[in-house]
Amino acid sequence: MEKNRVEAFSDGLFAIVATLLVIELKLPDGPSVWLDLLSIGPKILAFVLSFLIVTMYWVAHHSMFNFVSRVDRNLLWLNNLSLLCVSFIPFPTAVLGNHPQDPNAIALYGITLILVNVTDTLAWSYAARKPELSGKHLTPHIATLVTRLHLSPVAAYTVAIVAGRFQPLLSLAIFVCVPLFFIIPNRWVSGNIRSSVK
Amino acid sequence: MEKNRVEAFSDGLFAIVATLLVIELKLPDGPSVWLDLLSIGPKILAFVLSFLIVTMYWVAHHSMFNFVSRVDRNLLWLNNLSLLCVSFIPFPTAVLGNHPQDPNAIALYGITLILVNVTDTLAWSYAARKPELSGKHLTPHIATLVTRLHLSPVAAYTVAIVAGRFQPLLSLAIFVCVPLFFIIPNRWVSGNIRSSVK
Amino acid sequence: MEKNRVEAFSDGLFAIVATLLVIELKLPDGPSVWLDLLSIGPKILAFVLSFLIVTMYWVAHHSMFNFVSRVDRNLLWLNNLSLLCVSFIPFPTAVLGNHPQDPNAIALYGITLILVNVTDTLAWSYAARKPELSGKHLTPHIATLVTRLHLSPVAAYTVAIVAGRFQPLLSLAIFVCVPLFFIIPNRWVSGNIRSSVK
Amino acid sequence: MEKNRVEAFSDGLFAIVATLLVIELKLPDGPSVWLDLLSIGPKILAFVLSFLIVTMYWVAHHSMFNFVSRVDRNLLWLNNLSLLCVSFIPFPTAVLGNHPQDPNAIALYGITLILVNVTDTLAWSYAARKPELSGKHLTPHIATLVTRLHLSPVAAYTVAIVAGRFQPLLSLAIFVCVPLFFIIPNRWVSGNIRSSVK
Repeated sequence: MEKNRVEAFSDGLFAIVATLLVIELKLPDGPSVWLDLLSIGPKILAFVLSFLIVTMYWVAHHSMFNFVSRVDRNLLWLNNLSLLCVSFIPFPTAVLGNHPQDPNAIALYGITLILVNVTDTLAWSYAARKPELSGKHLTPHIATLVTRLHLSPVAAYTVAIVAGRFQPLLSLAIFVCVPLFFIIPNRWVSGNIRSSVK
Repeated sequence: MEKNRVEAFSDGLFAIVATLLVIELKLPDGPSVWLDLLSIGPKILAFVLSFLIVTMYWVAHHSMFNFVSRVDRNLLWLNNLSLLCVSFIPFPTAVLGNHPQDPNAIALYGITLILVNVTDTLAWSYAARKPELSGKHLTPHIATLVTRLHLSPVAAYTVAIVAGRFQPLLSLAIFVCVPLFFIIPNRWVSGNIRSSVK
Repeated sequence: MEKNRVEAFSDGLFAIVATLLVIELKLPDGPSVWLDLLSIGPKILAFVLSFLIVTMYWVAHHSMFNFVSRVDRNLLWLNNLSLLCVSFIPFPTAVLGNHPQDPNAIALYGITLILVNVTDTLAWSYAARKPELSGKHLTPHIATLVTRLHLSPVAAYTVAIVAGRFQPLLSLAIFVCVPLFFIIPNRWVSGNIRSSVK
Repeated sequence: MEKNRVEAFSDGLFAIVATLLVIELKLPDGPSVWLDLLSIGPKILAFVLSFLIVTMYWVAHHSMFNFVSRVDRNLLWLNNLSLLCVSFIPFPTAVLGNHPQDPNAIALYGITLILVNVTDTLAWSYAARKPELSGKHLTPHIATLVTRLHLSPVAAYTVAIVAGRFQPLLSLAIFVCVPLFFIIPNRWVSGNIRSSVK
């Protein structure tokens, strides 16, 4: 299987997942359009949050595959496993939009995201350990940095899941901060990226 | 991130949004197919309108990226922000199809389109100001022309939103005219495009 | 706009339309899975029919673009107009699946298909008349053959619409025969294609 | 029709089918999110199962097309026939998720998968028999191995359909084992693949 093929399939899947999220948004048949819109405010926020998170994963997927030069059967299926978790995201997004302060809805959302990061990291660790899959320019130092970037959100998501039992709003704030942390230019991310690209 | 990648992802997303619009169309279980069709006439018109607008944005996105030679992290996320607004379009389209003369439905539709144009222009302004992202053949004159083409619909959408309070049909006419203005060959658009391509 | 771009966007749209058709299929909550399946038999047949028709249009679109070397603004929008009609197909398919013997459902389905063929032919006629868009190897003889292949189904669809008033089953048979005519190898199609490729 | 085109269209369709599966997942409005999630457990499992099966078919499709160098009109339509069956998968998946122990739901699911394998094998047999479509490096030995890999699941699915009358859980176990058999590295698959690639 050529690398280009796997990337094109993954890109398509990320684009479809990002776009499918909007299907969940339906205006209820209430007294006025304005009040109806307010009533689904949490669903709209969940849509925006998940769109940012899915595109964040897409960017991460690309950065990762920049260091992959060949795809073998195992890497292919570890990647498919990660895509399975990504394609599941619209469901916990809808649940969270309907029950934004429910600890179990928060846990479902967090666990799904953790699974994406873990399977992503599994695929990366496998590729990084095999010199015939990752290119020559991948040093152990870079491999560790990329793994750290991929695993760091897991800690945040875990805190969000636990906090959901006591302070649901804190959990939601954490979910929002993770993509913002990777989107808004900051030293930690750009420092790690720069030293991994060098 | 290579420019090709970003374009392929954006193309996929535009194609999916354009196609998802039809999902909203459901024939009610009325007395006759003919009368049922008439009853959802506004939804069908909203579908056609949004399809034209989404493909108009797709064409604009391409014209813009013709002048971009490289994509950095900030441009990538400004583009994702614009795609977020594009992927939201099916929702206000459905609301407008259900409440075609409601001022708030018109405002929601107009605001969504304004957000697409504004984020699009943000991405463009960022790229145009950095010589390492835009190619050498981009003169300040062209940069201004492209910005003007991208921002001009904002004025029309604003008028449509205000007019929605008094004359909803006028608002709908304005929404229809914007894509037609870019589709039907005319001097203003082709003049600006020609002078920007030269 | 490069030709490759337009083809990739069109390919994506055809693939999404073909796949969205299945969303309409929902098993009712009846007494037994077997009887429920029988009760939605017409919807399943409408799904299969429309899938074949959409892929037939995809193949026709490709054959046509083989003779196109460049895309200008007008051809781009004529192509978008044709894609608009294609992206509408899931709706009349659902209506036909729900009311398989209703003359108006048959008319809606037939008119949609006619619009695809007419807009397709408009795009082709425009491209064929401009030597800078179609390549040098396009002779007037081939241009006429392609036009004939694209317009011939219009006659069949018109007969189907009229027959729907008296013999709905005859209409459905005609709808089924059109894609089969292009799929199953036969002299008329292959003769026209061969002489146009020569 | 160029081979690349057919592959890109097929890739897009596989990615969309894999992603559409999640649309079926809706949380019922029950007493608690946790109990509601448990109540749709079978649907979630059906989603995971079908995602693995669709990506398995995608991998098989690629392996097959590695040996195809040119696509003629017949191969194109045999491929489309196979894609028709693939695009149908979300429907039996939803039925199985709703009636996981119903013999008819199991039969519908199994028959759909058998149709994918049979049409896939038809396309392959046609391509393998024509030297102008398959490349020179395809020996009769490899052609037989690929056919065997594509047809072997049919036997398993048939057993699952029959077992569904007596032991529905056994059928489900068989459905799960087929993709796992191709995903988890094992001698039979890798031996066949290795000897076919040599």
